[in-house]
Amino acid sequence: MNTADKVETVRWVGDVDGQLVLIDQTLLPVEFREITCGTLEEVWEAIKVLRVRGAPAIGIAAAYGVCLGLQPYAAADHDSFFDRLDEVVKYLGESRPTAVNLFWALRRMEKLAASLRQSASIREIRLALLDEARTIHEEDRRMCHAIGRHGADLLTHGQGVLTHCNAGGLATAEYGTALSVFFTAQDQGKQVHVFVDETRPLLQGSRLTAWELKQRGITATLICDSMAAQVMREGKVQAVITGADRIAANGDSANKIGTYSVAVLARAHGIPFYIAAPSSTFDLSIASGAEIPIEERASDEITHGFGKPTAPEGVAVYNPAFDVTPAELIKAIITERGVIDPVATETIAACLGEPG
Amino acid sequence: MNTADKVETVRWVGDVDGQLVLIDQTLLPVEFREITCGTLEEVWEAIKVLRVRGAPAIGIAAAYGVCLGLQPYAAADHDSFFDRLDEVVKYLGESRPTAVNLFWALRRMEKLAASLRQSASIREIRLALLDEARTIHEEDRRMCHAIGRHGADLLTHGQGVLTHCNAGGLATAEYGTALSVFFTAQDQGKQVHVFVDETRPLLQGSRLTAWELKQRGITATLICDSMAAQVMREGKVQAVITGADRIAANGDSANKIGTYSVAVLARAHGIPFYIAAPSSTFDLSIASGAEIPIEERASDEITHGFGKPTAPEGVAVYNPAFDVTPAELIKAIITERGVIDPVATETIAACLGEPG
Repeated sequence: MNTADKVETVRWVGDVDGQLVLIDQTLLPVEFREITCGTLEEVWEAIKVLRVRGAPAIGIAAAYGVCLGLQPYAAADHDSFFDRLDEVVKYLGESRPTAVNLFWALRRMEKLAASLRQSASIREIRLALLDEARTIHEEDRRMCHAIGRHGADLLTHGQGVLTHCNAGGLATAEYGTALSVFFTAQDQGKQVHVFVDETRPLLQGSRLTAWELKQRGITATLICDSMAAQVMREGKVQAVITGADRIAANGDSANKIGTYSVAVLARAHGIPFYIAAPSSTFDLSIASGAEIPIEERASDEITHGFGKPTAPEGVAVYNPAFDVTPAELIKAIITERGVIDPVATETIAACLGEPG
Repeated sequence: MNTADKVETVRWVGDVDGQLVLIDQTLLPVEFREITCGTLEEVWEAIKVLRVRGAPAIGIAAAYGVCLGLQPYAAADHDSFFDRLDEVVKYLGESRPTAVNLFWALRRMEKLAASLRQSASIREIRLALLDEARTIHEEDRRMCHAIGRHGADLLTHGQGVLTHCNAGGLATAEYGTALSVFFTAQDQGKQVHVFVDETRPLLQGSRLTAWELKQRGITATLICDSMAAQVMREGKVQAVITGADRIAANGDSANKIGTYSVAVLARAHGIPFYIAAPSSTFDLSIASGAEIPIEERASDEITHGFGKPTAPEGVAVYNPAFDVTPAELIKAIITERGVIDPVATETIAACLGEPG
């Protein structure tokens, strides 16, 4: 049950024949409504149209989706069951083909089932798969809390902090990454005041982050992205914390467009800029951010952002989805394994090399 | 007549019994429509609901509005005529009480009429008032072109330039201030590519600046405010030029919120940041920007920016209308009297002290 201080983005209700309940994030912040997915197709649709979003949350939903897809095959023989598993995995993989965590979770479910094919009954395999989905879910929850604990140590009572986009519970199992730091600080009795960049063009800040902070009773002020510099100049912000989508071996961090802007402004005002992200966000196969391609999104996100045209027809638009903040602007990276400070190839390797 | 390369924000049609034609800026960029004001009340309404906006354009419209308001008094005696003039001035002054240029233009019209009261016929006074309105209009046009010429000298062919908000022809008699620099560069055969910040919350960049540039055939790319840093980092911008609303004696410049952010980002990327503004923008009665109060606007500009809610109900919002860019971030101020470089109390006094 979602309550004032607990937001459950994804939850499984019942046993092996249960159902998946999701917050419909497309309706936020105007309406809070949960949807119940009783079939594979409903999970696919929820991922497709972003009712559930955020890499970790998509992975968790897909893992439970596998369980749902196999429910009608409870009485099947092993061959039919495993044929169906292949179908289910392929089908879910087509819901959001660019989501790395989606494939990671599906492969993990497949691998577990394969390991049991010779030794277990269909019911035992189904129980083990549900258990695996719950484990993925629980691992994410623990990861969020660990990031929150490490990050909260960096904040002191009464500080103002600024965040960009939504790195919150709605994108993960529970507390999120950047927002977990604020939630954990609050749990520890430290009050922080959060300035929330609205995050054009898709407004994840005003729609989702402001909503999550309100749900948990954290005081927050919504601003337009162009106001962050002014808020910093007025001395209202003592730290900036954002999430990240992909971090290179040297610490260069790709995140929602506008993050680099905030990092430059923070440096100019002498304010520490932190990234909060799980160790799974690091991609050690790329040496630096120069190797991260910048995806461009549709121009109508800017020209028709709210359903009606707000720019002249045919105007050229540049709409990069991400930018890359160079490591030298990042004071520290907060992971579930600890805080990487200073941010450099060596300190990152040392942190990731240690057992979690 | 408005044509592809000429935007006439305000124009008088006919003689002393003529009419005022305005571009209805509330319909831009979706629709280009001119409205004809045949009465004082129509001009008042157009100023009130921002069909005409921008300090210089409001002043010009009000001056013509005085002429319209006196048309029904062509046959009146002097006392009735001057009573009516008082009424008209008072009425127009209530359309937009915070617009400095509105009062400046109305006072100028009043003063001229008073100087002729004893010596001239009603028809002569009406002709002189129309001539004064046309002079205010023409002075503004000349001022815009002079700023354009001085500013264009700072640009070279093929450069990328970034601007914020709308300091264009729609706010003035013709070429505008910051945009005049681009229009004049084009007239001189220098092609520049303009990056246009959309300028949240009211989107003057995407609605008005992008439209004006398109009208005059200048290549432009629309971006969200949070993308300016990325565009600079990619080396696409060699100069930033914005307008200003009020400039202190030391050069600190108040302008649309987000201007300070752009100035900090420009400095961090080694890009010169210019202000283009007429000498009337300087307020030598204030020593520095610290004395400029920051007006806050309604929160629903951010939370309901496009007619529907995009933030949770009751969220706290900070919506400063302006920010102040300190003089040390401004490479030069482009005025109709010349370019002030470096920007300092002494160089400003020297420029403003010279005859225009």
